[in-house]
Amino acid sequence: MSVTFPRGFRAAGVVAGLKESGRPDLALLVADVDAPAAAAGAFTTNAFPAAPVTLAIEHLRGGRARAVVVNSGQANAGTGAPGMQDARATAAAVADVLGCQPDEVLVCSTGVIGPRVRLDRLRDGLPGAAGALSTDPGGGEAFARAILTTDTRAKQASASAGAWRVGGCVKGAGMIGPRLAPAELGTMLAFLTTDAPATPEALAAIVAERVVPAFNSVTVDACPSTNDTVLLLASGAAGGDAVLPGTPGAAALGEAVAAVCEDLARQLVADAEGASRVLVVHVEGAEDDEAARAVGLAVASSPLVKTAVAGGDPNPGRFLQAVGASGAAFDPAGVRVLLGGEAVIERGIVAEPVPEKAERAMSEPEVVLRVELGSGPGAATVFGCDLTEGYVEINARYHT
Amino acid sequence: MSVTFPRGFRAAGVVAGLKESGRPDLALLVADVDAPAAAAGAFTTNAFPAAPVTLAIEHLRGGRARAVVVNSGQANAGTGAPGMQDARATAAAVADVLGCQPDEVLVCSTGVIGPRVRLDRLRDGLPGAAGALSTDPGGGEAFARAILTTDTRAKQASASAGAWRVGGCVKGAGMIGPRLAPAELGTMLAFLTTDAPATPEALAAIVAERVVPAFNSVTVDACPSTNDTVLLLASGAAGGDAVLPGTPGAAALGEAVAAVCEDLARQLVADAEGASRVLVVHVEGAEDDEAARAVGLAVASSPLVKTAVAGGDPNPGRFLQAVGASGAAFDPAGVRVLLGGEAVIERGIVAEPVPEKAERAMSEPEVVLRVELGSGPGAATVFGCDLTEGYVEINARYHT
Repeated sequence: MSVTFPRGFRAAGVVAGLKESGRPDLALLVADVDAPAAAAGAFTTNAFPAAPVTLAIEHLRGGRARAVVVNSGQANAGTGAPGMQDARATAAAVADVLGCQPDEVLVCSTGVIGPRVRLDRLRDGLPGAAGALSTDPGGGEAFARAILTTDTRAKQASASAGAWRVGGCVKGAGMIGPRLAPAELGTMLAFLTTDAPATPEALAAIVAERVVPAFNSVTVDACPSTNDTVLLLASGAAGGDAVLPGTPGAAALGEAVAAVCEDLARQLVADAEGASRVLVVHVEGAEDDEAARAVGLAVASSPLVKTAVAGGDPNPGRFLQAVGASGAAFDPAGVRVLLGGEAVIERGIVAEPVPEKAERAMSEPEVVLRVELGSGPGAATVFGCDLTEGYVEINARYHT
Repeated sequence: MSVTFPRGFRAAGVVAGLKESGRPDLALLVADVDAPAAAAGAFTTNAFPAAPVTLAIEHLRGGRARAVVVNSGQANAGTGAPGMQDARATAAAVADVLGCQPDEVLVCSTGVIGPRVRLDRLRDGLPGAAGALSTDPGGGEAFARAILTTDTRAKQASASAGAWRVGGCVKGAGMIGPRLAPAELGTMLAFLTTDAPATPEALAAIVAERVVPAFNSVTVDACPSTNDTVLLLASGAAGGDAVLPGTPGAAALGEAVAAVCEDLARQLVADAEGASRVLVVHVEGAEDDEAARAVGLAVASSPLVKTAVAGGDPNPGRFLQAVGASGAAFDPAGVRVLLGGEAVIERGIVAEPVPEKAERAMSEPEVVLRVELGSGPGAATVFGCDLTEGYVEINARYHT
């Protein structure tokens, strides 16, 4: 279940011929209610944001949206003013087909950076996409499939908060290391929907406090894309009183959204380019949550840790190196690192030999590392994956 | 020619049995003059500095040294107080064999992080190393060989400034992404010697201004080690007046030292784990040199750029992504990137299609990228390499 799990949304995904592979490449999500949905987003902080990112930020100013259109195949990044025209033309074409205003349409693109979007094919594909729009789980799944690039499978998640439903999907297998900022400026694309009657302000707060930290804690190759985008839309179709920021209702909705984000984050790293194992790094005892995330990302981004995970080699020295190079402030003599629940670093000193249980934990499908810094209340969980020959092959042999 | 090219130094490298492979693993460099050599160094900023790093910083306080001893096989990092005792015992043993004070000995270690140094074997090997000390090029080469770990060859360089000679060697093939700070706290080890009569202060200035920027501009896997160390020793054996900081003499010596560093940096990335191509990134037009280096390192560290270099795939979108994610401040619309002298990004827009000459340049043994930011006087040159299946194999299959 994904974006059509909450009531008030229809979705579709079709083949428009944007990808050479002939796979689905045009996705459409429509808020199926009288008024546009409340909407909030977070976008890449890359200095070269893609044209659709710039346009989505512009269209999100009013906190409302009626439709999201996503093309895969071309990222429409590094395309200058012509790329911006293509993004605007895409929004206009969607508005035309749906009978709404162009600024009610949010455009997202993913694929190769540089080439222009195949606009004619995109336009030709829109009526078919609109015709296929469905409130069924199948509509959400078709949407989740059409946004993929080097991903091998659709990644969907759902949760509930009382009567409210939350659904979402994500794409991304490489160039993943988002540094998102709310409403400022991925090629991680994540789409979240809810039928809660949340205001744009409540959604924006949930994006800033729950969605951005969750996705900024994910890394495949530590590469923040030109196109990274997360969108959260609320149809209000569940009915009831408006959910305002700072209320218990907003907190409950935030919990459900965060649960969907964590589920999607785990699915994302499991489907990362060439990945054979997931690496989960729990960090605690940091000065603050941001410092904890920095330590977790330093460990999960280290090529030496990632190759050790690929080889199933419990190598505490590499954990020590990565924690020490994170730039976070902590007392080195207070650092403890656990692998499979067994200490492999204690008081900053590497355990020799590595405990057998820790050794076995390194060969699990999900390798779980716990880093205790002992220097404060900050905590974070970071999701990464191993670095295999497969990642190199995909990225050295294919122009992605 | 390396550390014994300048007059006043003897060097040796022997097999002490510290490495399982049976290759040379104990290196000794001795200032062969009446007084100890003037000395300065730069060390890792990793929060877990190896025991020998901590000891070398302590012993360098007076700006003088008589000997450098290097063991390969064990890094003596993450070893706590026992590791510190081992480093001190190593210095004492060298002092005993050479007839000098322990605090005149600088200890360096490289190898696996965690295990204790095989101190008995190290001690047993010292008389043989002392007996083999030689002023010949062969002595310098033996030294340069005994410091290697996953390197495939010795890396040596030399230069002259008038009558003064400068020599050096470096080791390192993985866990390379030094963030050195002068006299504060790699497993890059670099040893530089000169026979110029430079004072410790003049050497410290050259280390800060020429040596640190040079080696901090090198990356294999962007992993700052627990053991990264650069040492510069001046025997004064060339005779003449003392070389003081800020003088034309110091500037001339600095130029020669910088030339040796750049030569060693290029050799280092060429011999990096699994590397098939060198990547040189020239950055200009940054706000300052540090911002330029940040952009160069962002490009040369990107797994997506590195795999594109491995595949010989001219992929300007990946250059754009990496420059944009560097965190440096610049006007995106002013950015130009040249590959093989041809623009592949112009005014922030990706050239489509990629010029043929640029395509060919991507398959050269040395890929040269020029990034023009157009936003200031800052410039830097960064040395990196490609990311191949070989790197993954070495680091996933072997415990290094």
